[in-house]
Amino acid sequence: MPRAGFSAGSPKVDVVIDMGNPLLNRTVDGFLKIGAVGACRVAAEDAFECLHKGSVSKNKLEQTLKKMCKEGAYWGTVAGVYVGVAYGVERVRGRYDWKNALIGGAVTGALISVAGNGKADKIAKDAITGGAIATAVEFINYLT
Amino acid sequence: MPRAGFSAGSPKVDVVIDMGNPLLNRTVDGFLKIGAVGACRVAAEDAFECLHKGSVSKNKLEQTLKKMCKEGAYWGTVAGVYVGVAYGVERVRGRYDWKNALIGGAVTGALISVAGNGKADKIAKDAITGGAIATAVEFINYLT
Repeated sequence: MPRAGFSAGSPKVDVVIDMGNPLLNRTVDGFLKIGAVGACRVAAEDAFECLHKGSVSKNKLEQTLKKMCKEGAYWGTVAGVYVGVAYGVERVRGRYDWKNALIGGAVTGALISVAGNGKADKIAKDAITGGAIATAVEFINYLT
Repeated sequence: MPRAGFSAGSPKVDVVIDMGNPLLNRTVDGFLKIGAVGACRVAAEDAFECLHKGSVSKNKLEQTLKKMCKEGAYWGTVAGVYVGVAYGVERVRGRYDWKNALIGGAVTGALISVAGNGKADKIAKDAITGGAIATAVEFINYLT
């Protein structure tokens, strides 16, 4: 079941949502978790900028919040699509190896490219890049 | 021990190198494997371009080869540094969780930024982005 939250020590915040379907559960889980990471990245970057410049304005805070939502949604969508596709491929192929990651990454790259109004050329290249990144990450998993 | 190679079915190519040190082994392994993935990405992209245009020239092949070496070395270096740092952090902290990925990603982002002659501002931002990406990937691992 999708559980979003962080536990940095003892205090723990958990959000559990059951969509009643393992594929949907994973997709929502990916969206929530990775979306939160993306939003945190923007927050950390903008907090660093404020500390560096030594000034915080209401305008800047609003901008940061908007950027957090936008980037969080983007990261979450990419992760949700990837997790969903990888799970689907795993179910169809009946086993789990790096080829699932390759297919998942390629499909995700292509879908994101299509959603971003990419041309046929760009879609194919984004699919290749997505597949390569997912494969690389899969290999790194075995190493760490 | 570092083993570079792919097994797409039964035929298998394996290169095994033992550096006599687990940290070095992992770093070299990461460099070889992810470098190969990066080089394959360029090869696939350029092969697609050639198919699309319907022409192959010697000049283009040379360019592709150079690009493969360059991008392979870049991907390999990033992966090698990340794997090495993550392993080092794991040994120092004595346990493995997402915080290792966060630290590993941040250190890798900062190092790559320093190597690319980034300014202090850019280094900090690259560290934040690196940490966020590594954390996101670590979370995705638990989902797939």
